[in-house]
Amino acid sequence: MSRTNIITLLTDFGLRDTYVAQMKAVVLGVNPLARLIDLTHGIAAGDIREAAHALESACFLFPPGTVHLAVVDPGVGSARAPLALKAAGFLFVGPDNGIFTPALAADPEARAFRLREDVGGRVFSATFHGRDIFAPAAAHLSLGRNIEEIGEFYAGCAVLPLARARHEEAAVVGEIRHVDHFGNLISNITPQDLQGRVPKRIRVGSFCATGILWTYSDVGPGECLALWGGSGRLEVSCRGESAARRLGLGVGDAVVMETS
Amino acid sequence: MSRTNIITLLTDFGLRDTYVAQMKAVVLGVNPLARLIDLTHGIAAGDIREAAHALESACFLFPPGTVHLAVVDPGVGSARAPLALKAAGFLFVGPDNGIFTPALAADPEARAFRLREDVGGRVFSATFHGRDIFAPAAAHLSLGRNIEEIGEFYAGCAVLPLARARHEEAAVVGEIRHVDHFGNLISNITPQDLQGRVPKRIRVGSFCATGILWTYSDVGPGECLALWGGSGRLEVSCRGESAARRLGLGVGDAVVMETS
Amino acid sequence: MSRTNIITLLTDFGLRDTYVAQMKAVVLGVNPLARLIDLTHGIAAGDIREAAHALESACFLFPPGTVHLAVVDPGVGSARAPLALKAAGFLFVGPDNGIFTPALAADPEARAFRLREDVGGRVFSATFHGRDIFAPAAAHLSLGRNIEEIGEFYAGCAVLPLARARHEEAAVVGEIRHVDHFGNLISNITPQDLQGRVPKRIRVGSFCATGILWTYSDVGPGECLALWGGSGRLEVSCRGESAARRLGLGVGDAVVMETS
Repeated sequence: MSRTNIITLLTDFGLRDTYVAQMKAVVLGVNPLARLIDLTHGIAAGDIREAAHALESACFLFPPGTVHLAVVDPGVGSARAPLALKAAGFLFVGPDNGIFTPALAADPEARAFRLREDVGGRVFSATFHGRDIFAPAAAHLSLGRNIEEIGEFYAGCAVLPLARARHEEAAVVGEIRHVDHFGNLISNITPQDLQGRVPKRIRVGSFCATGILWTYSDVGPGECLALWGGSGRLEVSCRGESAARRLGLGVGDAVVMETS
Repeated sequence: MSRTNIITLLTDFGLRDTYVAQMKAVVLGVNPLARLIDLTHGIAAGDIREAAHALESACFLFPPGTVHLAVVDPGVGSARAPLALKAAGFLFVGPDNGIFTPALAADPEARAFRLREDVGGRVFSATFHGRDIFAPAAAHLSLGRNIEEIGEFYAGCAVLPLARARHEEAAVVGEIRHVDHFGNLISNITPQDLQGRVPKRIRVGSFCATGILWTYSDVGPGECLALWGGSGRLEVSCRGESAARRLGLGVGDAVVMETS
Repeated sequence: MSRTNIITLLTDFGLRDTYVAQMKAVVLGVNPLARLIDLTHGIAAGDIREAAHALESACFLFPPGTVHLAVVDPGVGSARAPLALKAAGFLFVGPDNGIFTPALAADPEARAFRLREDVGGRVFSATFHGRDIFAPAAAHLSLGRNIEEIGEFYAGCAVLPLARARHEEAAVVGEIRHVDHFGNLISNITPQDLQGRVPKRIRVGSFCATGILWTYSDVGPGECLALWGGSGRLEVSCRGESAARRLGLGVGDAVVMETS
């Protein structure tokens, strides 16, 4: 795998403490040339599903060979395995708790390895494997070190049942899986879910769109619309406002796309 | 223009989603050696004026040749042009909506180019030009690629009417244009506005300062003062407290500097 | 001292303004190859004690030769000296207000230097020494420039009386010194404080633990526990919840570890 020195970090640590910086310190101690890019540290505490969605939204855009270090790890120090994965041309490092479901789904030939717990020299803590196991493992991989040298082949990775859109007779039924910073409601419906059918109406809460528009400026200020968003998924937005607040909707609410 | 590989990013995307990371991923795919520096991602959603002020506060401090990627873009996907600018020894990339007013004001010889929409290979989305047009354009420029290769000369850039201080007989009248993290009230009055006159009194809301002090420690804890701040502008601060909260003032409130 | 080009930044500036970016701009103007790592910018405004704790939690994990730039500086522009320190194989740059107490405590041979105020070429502002004095000083040091060239030997650094745990007949008495993002209560008690004795009971507020457990999964969801945390200190946590909120405790509250 080509060596890029790029390591991304995704955690639920927030930015107020120095936890993220402690992980970066350990990475730089192993690979002084590592280039560290934050995906986000704003995942809700212990929310593996949100973490998996966030990882999926960004990980495949990086140059091949990038190491993705993802630590949302409510079971830290328990029996859950510490993992490194090769999938879709990328490397992933983090706990075996389902966070890597999108990487596994993207590549049927993905291979997983259980990390040796002494990969960082010694384990300092049972509650900060992000710093003491995952960060050094990611750093070694970013140096081009072979994954087999730091772990053993591992089968049976945990997989989250991520909700996919459901196909009915004259509709695709999905749900909102993320509300972004702007209050956009991002669903799990993709253009592929239409299977060639034409969308007639999109219903979400009290809002009904009679078509899929191109961009926010296609409606007046404060009006709602449905569009294929930057994520490649159906989004419901409100021009210049939060659609989530305006419509009173959030993660898990149903999105129905009626087709002809 | 000298090549620095430095690209700064300014957006209203916040840090909870992976939008900023998606832009960085695209940049690194084009220029693996790009050095990415966040200006801020905390601009209020769609607030072009705040974005212009924030850009102005930092952009000219970077090494010449730095590429400033600024994406506060409520009109994304509409007719507004995607731009690259050469101004004051820097390169700027973002939407033509007035966000680059300070760059244009700083350099009468600034030259603007309308970016080709396929600069990133293909356009994925009508709502995320930050990732699909502006990020690849910035990355190409950071590689030293000629601006003419990725855009066409463009005239008539949008310019915001940024409020400048007004000169009256015995006063300079300005306004608060930013309230910072500490609650400091930062005005649009500069020492140049005095035109050699001596400030006698500074009035802002209920507060009246009889002179311009040097630093916070020149008053007692909890007391307010006026000083020339780090921005080179007149600031009203409160030692160890938020002047905005203490005085109940904010952006747009008047600042009157009486002169002799 | 080995040259790493790594400069960390710790401030109370927050991330909404461009203050941190302004410091980075100045650093890159002096050392274009500097590698900038944020420790945190979320220190409460002017809270030197919190800053010292945060610095201590991360600074020693970086590669030797790293320059730590720490600017929590309520006395900016006053008589307090601008410092550079050599301690424990690292370099520290910031105000002489006690923020470097942990660095001084870690190395009895630490040496301090008072920075020349013109280290950045000229002083722009009395309120932003982070940008105008400390950032250029850190950048020069990261280039391998000798500390004696930019400052003069300085004795009598300010030291904070950081609370250490107290040893009683059958107890170690400490206090909570940090509440992290997850609501974990992090004390100032270390395993060394036990001096070989065995902990019997840990009391903090209404909670009493009868032993020190290994990790969060050792209790049921919502239950509290005491453990040696990632900081190497005694922590009281609540599985899947905030112990601070659950127990109604915070910084300064007593932690009593009864020993046999």
